Amino acid sequence: MSPFAPTLPLPAFDDAGLRSRVQAALDVKTKPKGALGRLEALALQIALVQGDASPRLVNPQLVVFAADHGIAARRVSAYPAEVTRQMVLNFLAGGAAVSVLARQHGIAVTVADCGVDADFPAAAGLACLKVRGAERGSADASAGPAMSPEQCRVAIAQGRDLVAALPGNALLLGEMGIGNSSAAALLMARLTGARLADCVGRGTGLDDLGLAHKRSVLEHALARHADALAPLQALAALGGLEIASMVGAVQQAAAERRVIVVDGFISTAAVAVAAALQPALLACCVFSHRSGEAAHGRWLEALGVQPLLDLDLRLGEGSGAALAWPLLVSAVNILAQMASFESAGISRRVS
Amino acid sequence: MSPFAPTLPLPAFDDAGLRSRVQAALDVKTKPKGALGRLEALALQIALVQGDASPRLVNPQLVVFAADHGIAARRVSAYPAEVTRQMVLNFLAGGAAVSVLARQHGIAVTVADCGVDADFPAAAGLACLKVRGAERGSADASAGPAMSPEQCRVAIAQGRDLVAALPGNALLLGEMGIGNSSAAALLMARLTGARLADCVGRGTGLDDLGLAHKRSVLEHALARHADALAPLQALAALGGLEIASMVGAVQQAAAERRVIVVDGFISTAAVAVAAALQPALLACCVFSHRSGEAAHGRWLEALGVQPLLDLDLRLGEGSGAALAWPLLVSAVNILAQMASFESAGISRRVS
Repeated sequence: MSPFAPTLPLPAFDDAGLRSRVQAALDVKTKPKGALGRLEALALQIALVQGDASPRLVNPQLVVFAADHGIAARRVSAYPAEVTRQMVLNFLAGGAAVSVLARQHGIAVTVADCGVDADFPAAAGLACLKVRGAERGSADASAGPAMSPEQCRVAIAQGRDLVAALPGNALLLGEMGIGNSSAAALLMARLTGARLADCVGRGTGLDDLGLAHKRSVLEHALARHADALAPLQALAALGGLEIASMVGAVQQAAAERRVIVVDGFISTAAVAVAAALQPALLACCVFSHRSGEAAHGRWLEALGVQPLLDLDLRLGEGSGAALAWPLLVSAVNILAQMASFESAGISRRVS
Repeated sequence: MSPFAPTLPLPAFDDAGLRSRVQAALDVKTKPKGALGRLEALALQIALVQGDASPRLVNPQLVVFAADHGIAARRVSAYPAEVTRQMVLNFLAGGAAVSVLARQHGIAVTVADCGVDADFPAAAGLACLKVRGAERGSADASAGPAMSPEQCRVAIAQGRDLVAALPGNALLLGEMGIGNSSAAALLMARLTGARLADCVGRGTGLDDLGLAHKRSVLEHALARHADALAPLQALAALGGLEIASMVGAVQQAAAERRVIVVDGFISTAAVAVAAALQPALLACCVFSHRSGEAAHGRWLEALGVQPLLDLDLRLGEGSGAALAWPLLVSAVNILAQMASFESAGISRRVS
């Protein structure tokens, strides 16, 4: 096994010649220039990710990265930790929201067990990414580091390997883990420098009292790891196993020029860690939506990115990524299938 | 032929019992309450439109209502009027943006010739809704009424008849007509009482000079018809044939409990006229997007409605309606296909 590298080499995504060829192709389509708005920007982005003026989207893969979190024992979530395991079974049975949405759009779903507190029998669509010593989930970040540095590296490497083995050229990020909005909030506070209060939200639906308790638990955890400043240090100390595997998945996908469709607050955490190490990989990321978790919008702004949808979703699982997927398909179809002014015999503008 | 009635009888869309049954069904799905945000509200709306706790969307129909506008001769558009005819041919050939998007989502497209300045040979997917005396389009609203009251009534009645003959249970509104953002702006100013300057935009892409000219032509037209205050009077004096037929289409669709997917600024004009006569039909309308035409957002606010998408589209044709369509399908699928806490054996929240 080769030694762990914190990043993978990336291709150059910005190619001025390709950019102007695609822009020219969009501008001769039978519509006023720019009239398809963000759909045109999306077509251009996908072309640049693929390095191809005629981009195609093939065999999209949604991975639900699932793990448990020691910090959940501190009652930072409205739901008990056993729901992580139960929802994994729901994903595998096809009854979850993301199952329904992925089926609608022909998106394949893989559930990655990155450390769920359960032993699952082998099943189609289930990948085992458990990490030695953290098979049942991460440790409580308010009492010590969530993972050891070595466990974090293994989780990242396994996320890379999982993506390397997937077919297709697009990765949609999903996640499940009771407690993981706490891990994401801690990472947001550490990576962006925002006040923790601006990073913590209601997650799956805490009431005011629950929210205040969550803030206090997380203040404590953040203070305990005041020295975990570098992105991978912060990830190990404050993050979660599914977030670490997602970081690796994002790195691998970008290295392979796969389009990455980011979901909500938790998957944004993974992208933010990867982007802190290597900002250029943001070029591959399509941010599917601004979630109902208030901190998410602030984090997207801090990253300088604009989401496609704003539907007050706060479910995770990859549900927002799946909902946005047809917009990516539309963007590519517009470029491939629309007539040009010339081919359709349409008059140009008069002024 | 029965005498023209300005409205059609509507069913009662709000049914408290149905509303609470659907809300209860959403609340036991395997997700935190409300976590699918606007998708849940959309599922509820579609159920109420159909009067059915298990709504289905069948055979969606997009109609592109097309007509020419006498006011286009005043150079209120960046494109020459002949583009209306050329784009109709582009729709029929399947090369327009809406053709591409409708194909992606399995939406049938009909082009309704409500008064295009052309004689089209009969073609599959083309419906003739020309109005006697206005076969080549409406008259110049800055020089006289766009239509006679009788022509306006015929256009409305033909829009109703067209929808009555369509299969399926969902109508997506589209339109094409060089000059029709002028007609829509005039209707907005008259129906909402907003200053004309706040209703006029760049349409297909006027520059600053063109925009100033458009404003001045429209000020003149609005003043000329200062007495056309009632909705149908305003429609005849200031509107367009395709807008009038769309008004009838919206009325018929609502009367038949079809879901109506509204596109951009022009189709909003038709819905606003219909809603001025009969506010209850707004219950059937899903507003697909807020367009890049600045006045559109103001009009949606005035109507008290919230669009699904905000992608800076300003094309019309029904392109925004087609892009939003999969969200409606998702909403219905969530209700039909997601597991419940009980069926999936998922633990409830602890607090």
